[in-house]
Amino acid sequence: MSKPLILVCNDDGIFSVGIRTLIEVMSELGEVVVVAPDSPQSGMGHAITIGNTLRLEASDLFPGIVAYECSGTPADCVKLAKHHVLKGRKPDLVVSGINHGSNSSISVLYSGTMSAAIEAALEGLPAIGFSLCDYNAHADFSHVKAFVKQIASEVLTNGIAKGITLNVNFPAVINAPLKGIKICRQAHARWEEKFDERFDPYGRRYFWMAGSFENKDAGEDTDEWALANGYVSVVPCSYDLTAHQLLGQLNRDWKFIHE
Amino acid sequence: MSKPLILVCNDDGIFSVGIRTLIEVMSELGEVVVVAPDSPQSGMGHAITIGNTLRLEASDLFPGIVAYECSGTPADCVKLAKHHVLKGRKPDLVVSGINHGSNSSISVLYSGTMSAAIEAALEGLPAIGFSLCDYNAHADFSHVKAFVKQIASEVLTNGIAKGITLNVNFPAVINAPLKGIKICRQAHARWEEKFDERFDPYGRRYFWMAGSFENKDAGEDTDEWALANGYVSVVPCSYDLTAHQLLGQLNRDWKFIHE
Repeated sequence: MSKPLILVCNDDGIFSVGIRTLIEVMSELGEVVVVAPDSPQSGMGHAITIGNTLRLEASDLFPGIVAYECSGTPADCVKLAKHHVLKGRKPDLVVSGINHGSNSSISVLYSGTMSAAIEAALEGLPAIGFSLCDYNAHADFSHVKAFVKQIASEVLTNGIAKGITLNVNFPAVINAPLKGIKICRQAHARWEEKFDERFDPYGRRYFWMAGSFENKDAGEDTDEWALANGYVSVVPCSYDLTAHQLLGQLNRDWKFIHE
Repeated sequence: MSKPLILVCNDDGIFSVGIRTLIEVMSELGEVVVVAPDSPQSGMGHAITIGNTLRLEASDLFPGIVAYECSGTPADCVKLAKHHVLKGRKPDLVVSGINHGSNSSISVLYSGTMSAAIEAALEGLPAIGFSLCDYNAHADFSHVKAFVKQIASEVLTNGIAKGITLNVNFPAVINAPLKGIKICRQAHARWEEKFDERFDPYGRRYFWMAGSFENKDAGEDTDEWALANGYVSVVPCSYDLTAHQLLGQLNRDWKFIHE
């Protein structure tokens, strides 16, 4: 039996500790191919490069592993992997991360890590995004490796519903083992931005975006609850944004403007 | 009764014909404030600027209308509008567009236009993204004005479910009037990319991303069907990506890795 083919991507860039950890774990499960950004792409959401050119260069960063660095976004990496690196070979699994920082709740929308995974799901591939709730570039990933391996193995063995991407988040390391895995819904939380207004040496105004995360969703079935209580959160995500529950009502209410 | 406050954004930039058309129509409905990118931001998805600074400059492009151009992404524009332009005033409606090009089906994920609208919905504001299926910078928007006004009026008068963003797409102008509005689901279609491989004057390889849209979803309840048949498509979109229908099953199937 041949080893499964696993494509690894991320948004923090090919030089990050998180992708190195993910490659290490995935190498125990199959043949790994890496296509990752050549520079940090955090907060890029599902951006793609359509008005500019893309670079793709082989990398010898991971001995024995085929790896490429790409000048584009995480979603670009998945597209270029499909067309120019894998050349028709279909991955059995696409994993993205491990992100340095949380992608729980609505951060999934801003996340390049998750967008790479969602891009793979659009192509009909089983896909998982992994994130650690620790923004430190030298974050400790040791406590998550066993879970990453278990979740990836589960998806490799039993698959996942077509078009679904798993958004997996891990609490930062603490002095206690993680309690286990919780299947969750995305919490209805939000970012409250603060803009830091400054002036450049020429007297022109500019801003830095900053902010804090606010969770007013008290549900115990959310990813935020799971993470706050020492669990790994797993949210199955769909790329179909349609609010299906509203179609009937809108069809009735909007009759008058149908003519 | 005071006029409603309407925030206008887009992704093609403040100089585009599409936003000028949208401002013209919205001015008939309320007090308009514009915050739009200072350069094209197509394909930016829900990207935000977190590793770099942001500029925001007043613009006198639209006489009698408060307008700002921003160096950031469409989502940045909405955030800066809230914090530094509106200063606590809450818009009654946020509209984005009119985009030069389709944002139907899965293009909603890549769309800066729709991400600006979704960002507003995250803030609890009624929001609509408008797009025309014509990528031409000098596209003809004359046939869509009445529909834009009608849909925006409907949302101003009767509101829309909290957190929902309307993704409105219009067929390009043809020699027949549009047939009306259809409430739709997002079609399960995809982009088939082609990468055009070239070499720069130094012999280094680069790529242009290109591609074609492929719709294999035969449903007559989709946005693609509506557009192909001369209707305006309206898809209610949710920012909750959770595949709620899978939570029960995953909870049962994944029991063994809960310990």
